[in-house]
Amino acid sequence: MRSSAANAELALLLEVAGTPKPGNVDRQRDLAELRFEHFLAGAVGAREGLELAADGASVGSAFEQAIAGMATQEGDNTQFGALLLLVPLVRAAREDLSQPVAEAVVRETTVGDAAAFYRAFDHVDVGVADPPADMDDLDVRRGSDAVSAIEERGLTLYEIMERSVPGDDVAREWVQGFDRSFGAARRLADADGPLTDRTATVFLSLLAERPDTLVATRHDEATAREVTDRAGELVAADALETDPAAVEAFADDLVERGINPGTTADITAAGLFIALEHEAITV
Amino acid sequence: MRSSAANAELALLLEVAGTPKPGNVDRQRDLAELRFEHFLAGAVGAREGLELAADGASVGSAFEQAIAGMATQEGDNTQFGALLLLVPLVRAAREDLSQPVAEAVVRETTVGDAAAFYRAFDHVDVGVADPPADMDDLDVRRGSDAVSAIEERGLTLYEIMERSVPGDDVAREWVQGFDRSFGAARRLADADGPLTDRTATVFLSLLAERPDTLVATRHDEATAREVTDRAGELVAADALETDPAAVEAFADDLVERGINPGTTADITAAGLFIALEHEAITV
Repeated sequence: MRSSAANAELALLLEVAGTPKPGNVDRQRDLAELRFEHFLAGAVGAREGLELAADGASVGSAFEQAIAGMATQEGDNTQFGALLLLVPLVRAAREDLSQPVAEAVVRETTVGDAAAFYRAFDHVDVGVADPPADMDDLDVRRGSDAVSAIEERGLTLYEIMERSVPGDDVAREWVQGFDRSFGAARRLADADGPLTDRTATVFLSLLAERPDTLVATRHDEATAREVTDRAGELVAADALETDPAAVEAFADDLVERGINPGTTADITAAGLFIALEHEAITV
Repeated sequence: MRSSAANAELALLLEVAGTPKPGNVDRQRDLAELRFEHFLAGAVGAREGLELAADGASVGSAFEQAIAGMATQEGDNTQFGALLLLVPLVRAAREDLSQPVAEAVVRETTVGDAAAFYRAFDHVDVGVADPPADMDDLDVRRGSDAVSAIEERGLTLYEIMERSVPGDDVAREWVQGFDRSFGAARRLADADGPLTDRTATVFLSLLAERPDTLVATRHDEATAREVTDRAGELVAADALETDPAAVEAFADDLVERGINPGTTADITAAGLFIALEHEAITV
């Protein structure tokens, strides 16, 4: 019986191993500056923070530790978004890994959790959008320099996440009861074959469902929409089964254009954790 | 700064990710019953035992825990031999990860360590040769049933390893001061490129150096010799650089014939740990 922290680390590893995962590092593909080995080291480094969450530490402090550990590799940000989903889910698994409990965990976050979240940005360079003008002092890229503004405004981590929707589908999971993450877990259980294949199937189905918010942030809405439309066509044609070369070509094209649907990968990792924890998938 | 236990887990992950690694599961290849995901789960599961070793537990108890954790995946034995090298090396790293300290760690093992080593076989099915007739009661496949015989004979784990050489090159590392493991670490540092490429280079050089004892046990000496000769030709031709297709063809051939040079992979993992710990390679 694997511990929750071990399952969360394994979810990160299975996510990066899933292939083809168009636009992302996978078992077959490296990006120019971001390689498979950076994700392996990121997952290993995150373990200590995940253990803290499993032991009942606050979401913010466990997350900050997980990010500090994840960032002890040379690829910079590998799993920031995934850990922002996994840490509260590991915390929920202490009681019961259900949507209501996960929702309660994030709703109960404090101003202290928000401050720890901001400090986590000191460890790593994360792709985020500009904040609205009236929230300039809360720009996450200011890292720990924004902590006093957070404390003055008295914002909890949940409230920070509320302010990040729309535009960030990791934050959206926080305010919508981890709906897509639990959905991904069900799809992983229903899919066939080795977990690396199932991960690819579910990743593509999530990508077809909603435009990836990291792609929208780094490129634009139109690009994110185009990627989702192409994923949708591949899913409609059951291309992973009937025309795998078309999915591989899509994957190669996104890598060449530097289009990286990282938010979709984050939700895939969260789904893997839930499915492992519920023993809906086994390895 | 990554802990020793984290570096040891990462070494297991980098080892399986290295490709091409002829005959073994790698980033590109699965075997019929043994897949990449089993190795990911094996590495994650071993972490707790590796932490025990880093915290100063005895070699035997840390090893037994590492194997029990490694075995919580469905591929059966993935990293038994690698952990038999990593656990004493992690223990040595508490003081100094040098050949003399590693040698002292294994020489100081006790009868209790030997008993724990035998109990580890209860968790997993390991490919080993028949013992000599006068050592039938010490057959490791008897697992914990052999513990009373061990205790009666008063054999330490080091003495068990001495009796396993020749025929087991993991045991040989124990009695020869981890010579090939430290050599592999130096070669990893001298090689070029991403760590997954360096791992492939060093694996092939180790395979060319000595016939793999797992291949000799599962098949025969002639097969092990043939594999080493072919690896030697590829190394002499610098084939990973000049003719990668030849190495890929060798890898595919070994997988098809079910020839799995697992001992060479174990020593590669030990070399990765030493090189990570010495910061001779970074990720």
